[in-house]
Amino acid sequence: MKLLEDRIRKDGIVKPGNVLKVDSFLNHQIDIGLYQEMGREWKRLFEGTKITKILTIEASGIGLACITAQYFNVPVVFAKKSQSINLDGESYCTKIRSFTHQRVYDVIVSRKYLSPEDKILIIDDFLANGCALEGLIEIIHEAGAAVAGVGIAVEKGFQDGGRKIRSMGIRVESLAIVQSMDPATGEIVFADHSPADAAAEDPVH
Amino acid sequence: MKLLEDRIRKDGIVKPGNVLKVDSFLNHQIDIGLYQEMGREWKRLFEGTKITKILTIEASGIGLACITAQYFNVPVVFAKKSQSINLDGESYCTKIRSFTHQRVYDVIVSRKYLSPEDKILIIDDFLANGCALEGLIEIIHEAGAAVAGVGIAVEKGFQDGGRKIRSMGIRVESLAIVQSMDPATGEIVFADHSPADAAAEDPVH
Repeated sequence: MKLLEDRIRKDGIVKPGNVLKVDSFLNHQIDIGLYQEMGREWKRLFEGTKITKILTIEASGIGLACITAQYFNVPVVFAKKSQSINLDGESYCTKIRSFTHQRVYDVIVSRKYLSPEDKILIIDDFLANGCALEGLIEIIHEAGAAVAGVGIAVEKGFQDGGRKIRSMGIRVESLAIVQSMDPATGEIVFADHSPADAAAEDPVH
Repeated sequence: MKLLEDRIRKDGIVKPGNVLKVDSFLNHQIDIGLYQEMGREWKRLFEGTKITKILTIEASGIGLACITAQYFNVPVVFAKKSQSINLDGESYCTKIRSFTHQRVYDVIVSRKYLSPEDKILIIDDFLANGCALEGLIEIIHEAGAAVAGVGIAVEKGFQDGGRKIRSMGIRVESLAIVQSMDPATGEIVFADHSPADAAAEDPVH
């Protein structure tokens, strides 16, 4: 998605250790107009796919999931990262390792909000090693529900999360795929656009 | 707001220990249409008030803040609950005590996203003892910005957070104020509607 790639080039900051900071517009301060365009793009990409619910994980996936849900007209469920006294015992639970926070979380979704009839679109801001996604997919399968697809804002194409999830036969639509980035120069190279993107941008073909 | 009160009566669950579970529609599974109506209601209530930014705190405030920001056409900033390696050192930081999780959090907002020119609307899902709100207000004051108001989904009127914040001269618009609730019968009594609400519902006056 050219709009997102351009914004990452303009306002993203490359830090040592494969860290891409996009917190001025994506996951600390949020440009709501950009979120809306991303939600519309996923709606376009998943047109014709049956989706009954959007699942995300706290914290930075929640806003993107809520804005996107408006275009699909479905509820959002967000997985919680630690046991809360407000959650009763009836929950699906798994453990995920966070690259950003360098720790292991319990991830919890109440059994009441996932059913075998559900076709779930997972939305999240980042895909790197895929640990969070694997956890959410495990919970969806435990509920007997189906993964309709995955929508990611920024995929780190040089880490293996995208390959792992796609090799499970799951459709992953990342709106920007970073192929490489250089903390010394700040240069960010994106992977080629998806065929759908290219067609949309070049009406001749 | 009658829509929210009715939904709390229908789907809210009263638990011992002053716990009101609204996680089927407000803060675990999310009814996006309800969020939109709440956002429109805050836009109506704060009409004429200058607002440049919405501030909330992870996790359950984020979705509500993002949906609401669409009606104000402003960015959202969400405060983070613990130090992340993706946040640089340039942050406002305070500590808040969480009633729900019975622990103390560090709450952090990057200095880049609050400026002395900002007029901030704080949005959150619950107001009970007001600790989270006090933390956010402290951060806003530290940044030299102004608190334009506070929008709360559910205020526990029998706890003293609302009184504390209003006594600071800050306008708090809670869309539902629970006056009392009974875990034995499940009965929930709401405080009287605000004058604005009453006028909207009774066109004769």
